[in-house]
Amino acid sequence: MGYVRNAWYVAGWHDDVADRPYPVSILGERIVLWRSEGRLVALEDRCIHRFAPLSLGRCEAGRLRCMYHGIMFDADGAIAEIPGQDIIPPNARARSYPVVEKHSWIWVWMGEAARADEALVPPAVGLDDPNFILGRGHLDYAAEARLINDNLTDFSHLSFGHANSFQTGMDFADRQPKITPVARGIRVDRWNVNAERRLASGENVFGDTFASYDFLIPGVLLMWSGSYPAGTAERLNFETPDFDDAIAAKNFTSQAVTPTGDKTSCYFFSWGPDSATGTPELRDAMMALAGMAFNEDKVMIEAQQRVIDGHPAARIMPTAHDRGVGMFNRLVDSLARAETESAAA
Amino acid sequence: MGYVRNAWYVAGWHDDVADRPYPVSILGERIVLWRSEGRLVALEDRCIHRFAPLSLGRCEAGRLRCMYHGIMFDADGAIAEIPGQDIIPPNARARSYPVVEKHSWIWVWMGEAARADEALVPPAVGLDDPNFILGRGHLDYAAEARLINDNLTDFSHLSFGHANSFQTGMDFADRQPKITPVARGIRVDRWNVNAERRLASGENVFGDTFASYDFLIPGVLLMWSGSYPAGTAERLNFETPDFDDAIAAKNFTSQAVTPTGDKTSCYFFSWGPDSATGTPELRDAMMALAGMAFNEDKVMIEAQQRVIDGHPAARIMPTAHDRGVGMFNRLVDSLARAETESAAA
Amino acid sequence: MGYVRNAWYVAGWHDDVADRPYPVSILGERIVLWRSEGRLVALEDRCIHRFAPLSLGRCEAGRLRCMYHGIMFDADGAIAEIPGQDIIPPNARARSYPVVEKHSWIWVWMGEAARADEALVPPAVGLDDPNFILGRGHLDYAAEARLINDNLTDFSHLSFGHANSFQTGMDFADRQPKITPVARGIRVDRWNVNAERRLASGENVFGDTFASYDFLIPGVLLMWSGSYPAGTAERLNFETPDFDDAIAAKNFTSQAVTPTGDKTSCYFFSWGPDSATGTPELRDAMMALAGMAFNEDKVMIEAQQRVIDGHPAARIMPTAHDRGVGMFNRLVDSLARAETESAAA
Repeated sequence: MGYVRNAWYVAGWHDDVADRPYPVSILGERIVLWRSEGRLVALEDRCIHRFAPLSLGRCEAGRLRCMYHGIMFDADGAIAEIPGQDIIPPNARARSYPVVEKHSWIWVWMGEAARADEALVPPAVGLDDPNFILGRGHLDYAAEARLINDNLTDFSHLSFGHANSFQTGMDFADRQPKITPVARGIRVDRWNVNAERRLASGENVFGDTFASYDFLIPGVLLMWSGSYPAGTAERLNFETPDFDDAIAAKNFTSQAVTPTGDKTSCYFFSWGPDSATGTPELRDAMMALAGMAFNEDKVMIEAQQRVIDGHPAARIMPTAHDRGVGMFNRLVDSLARAETESAAA
Repeated sequence: MGYVRNAWYVAGWHDDVADRPYPVSILGERIVLWRSEGRLVALEDRCIHRFAPLSLGRCEAGRLRCMYHGIMFDADGAIAEIPGQDIIPPNARARSYPVVEKHSWIWVWMGEAARADEALVPPAVGLDDPNFILGRGHLDYAAEARLINDNLTDFSHLSFGHANSFQTGMDFADRQPKITPVARGIRVDRWNVNAERRLASGENVFGDTFASYDFLIPGVLLMWSGSYPAGTAERLNFETPDFDDAIAAKNFTSQAVTPTGDKTSCYFFSWGPDSATGTPELRDAMMALAGMAFNEDKVMIEAQQRVIDGHPAARIMPTAHDRGVGMFNRLVDSLARAETESAAA
Repeated sequence: MGYVRNAWYVAGWHDDVADRPYPVSILGERIVLWRSEGRLVALEDRCIHRFAPLSLGRCEAGRLRCMYHGIMFDADGAIAEIPGQDIIPPNARARSYPVVEKHSWIWVWMGEAARADEALVPPAVGLDDPNFILGRGHLDYAAEARLINDNLTDFSHLSFGHANSFQTGMDFADRQPKITPVARGIRVDRWNVNAERRLASGENVFGDTFASYDFLIPGVLLMWSGSYPAGTAERLNFETPDFDDAIAAKNFTSQAVTPTGDKTSCYFFSWGPDSATGTPELRDAMMALAGMAFNEDKVMIEAQQRVIDGHPAARIMPTAHDRGVGMFNRLVDSLARAETESAAA
């Protein structure tokens, strides 16, 4: 299975890139992020001269100079100066990537620049959103991004993998959520009826709890949830409630999975309560939980990767809970195949 | 050169496996050991669903549950439960390996289950044998098992590699032992006549010393030795003496070499004096010596492996001392070839 | 691009090899250096028996014994003894390499022994040369030697990479040096006119400064430089001055790049002032600078190697400053190609 190239991949947090070149790797391509007079720029992280990384270079008044032999690049990748040489070869330039800063993340478009469309940036919730009190973090994975995507499109693993951290009960394993296709992704909705308990985070969950997340190309999870008075689920015929009507445990999480190199990934996440009922202390308790839980996933998924590496030909045996996994992976496959065919045409 | 599959490989010490799944690797295959209501079980360490390792799972009343999405396995590898799904695919199961616990070691049969025969477990001496006071240890090797087998089937290296630790003289290098074939292995006998000296271990060796070891498929060394009154060797016409007649320096060592992964191995060993004349202190002194000596081997063999890796096509030049090495390797080759032909037929 | 085999490669400092076998690696070949009754010897570091490294062996009266099974080698690689065996196979021997000790370095000839010619040893300045007060060092590189050669045949990088350490100005980037072919290499000469400043080393540079280096097969840089009264460059029509006429900042550096393994290298260097005007304190200040600067190169070149590894098919874009790089690389190519053709004929 490949990855979709015509998509916005999270490269880092907005404040990762300040006044110095910042190296990232996406889909195995080395990219240097920097700011040219305030404007975010993404170039291939490779001088066209002798392949020194531009991320070891120096920002000079809106330009980036390779600090090996001094070749200078404009923000669009064009060469502005070659020391000791007057003529600049007309076609020589560093590849430039479309890049936007949105919702506190830096997003890089890995496909055809002409097709980069800001409207396709998934509607994550930024750290500065006044409606939520968010914490953030990231994990480097020694595993392929697709394994993390599989993890995030099947929450039945919560009942086993996160029984200790999130104190998830058997409901996630026993019952299927409602899964529907959305634009460039899937939506996963789940009512948890009469779930009276105190979460490890200190939040009280009671009555009926609803959670809904979209999992979007290339690997972005956006989830909100809240608690409602007992009887709400049935009254709404198990349809989606209004977030505003939730009376407790309202929160939002944005998560993004970026394939970095060969069997490595980066997992970015934010989470926190709504600002009306939450507090920074609750956010910190939730982030401590997330730290535990996401590490439980990392241990399992990296071990899974090692097993796969030793059995490259083995075939998985999907279960009923793999419906969301399959929907999302088929979407990725069809988009990736279309890209390949379009490139070959 | 390959390895024989229809053989019992040492996977660990009997007490390595208690109430939690225990991962091992043999011939590059990941295996999880656990106890199902007291009975030792060996399954492939790979959930059939999405290849999470079962060694990260949980033992539940005689069964093993994968802790990623909760698939539950019976002791024979059959699937007992798939969360969220009523139907269990009839042929879905984890591969099960024959396994026995004997002589303080856990032995796994890597070949056809139908041919697994407990009578083929090499007659090692267990730690609980009342006739000996044994210590134990193991070393992880960054080298192929066959190189350790080569080391153990030619003791001429003792004169050079272990001159400091075992204080071995030149006799091992100068004279050939008597080597005879035995069932699934070779026997190496050596009289050392008039070997009057105090060993570094504190043992006194005097008169005539005899040592005999069997080196058995897949790579198990079982050796006893003892000292006899001067003249015994000649009186017995250099045939094998009775162990009971030894008057000093009686001891036994069991050693097992297990290929684990690609160019990695595990070397298990026990050693100690007989309980009639030995003491725990002597055992400890012997084990300290063994620790030094076995590390001398490890340094040499791992370096040898690195040289071989850089010269994969180079051909060895056997010497007169390689007779035992050759006998054993030809036996391995013929058994491995027969297995391959039988599998192809 | 390959490397020239018919050349002397620096294997180490003269005093690296004393009374114990010393392992080195050149062009991916493991070699053991030792002294046989005072005479330096280089053999392949691999026992012909079972490939144990001879560098783990023991020197015995002019011979080297493998300490695995005791095979003994003469200084020319012939087998002197096989324990337990009377007959020595007539053609069995370890490969021997021509080796000389000269200018404080140990040089190994990697090509045809018959063509080894001491006259081809580059005229480095040894640590014991009475005309200079030299310090020395070496760096292990996780990069191919050819990248370090490229670095040393284009000093325009000094203006960017070493602006902090050597306090190099823009002259190196702005102006080309004079480059001429010499036997088995190139010569790079540079006048720096009216360069009045105090170096970070504490040396005062004033008037006109001249530096000239030869870069010789296989990768040896030999450079002298000195300061002259203002006007000297013009008076000499920018030709080469006499070293003896320099009035300050006289120094010499010898540097050697040796390919060791796959994408690894060793970089040996000495540097220091002339003994007439220099002091040990000045040498130490210069070596501290060199330590900074050479590490700046190492950081850049190792990063460059990683980028190249990810883009093996990418083509460099040479600049005007690459003239020396190109001259030297074409020389290497033509010599290496001639060797290949001669071997095939």
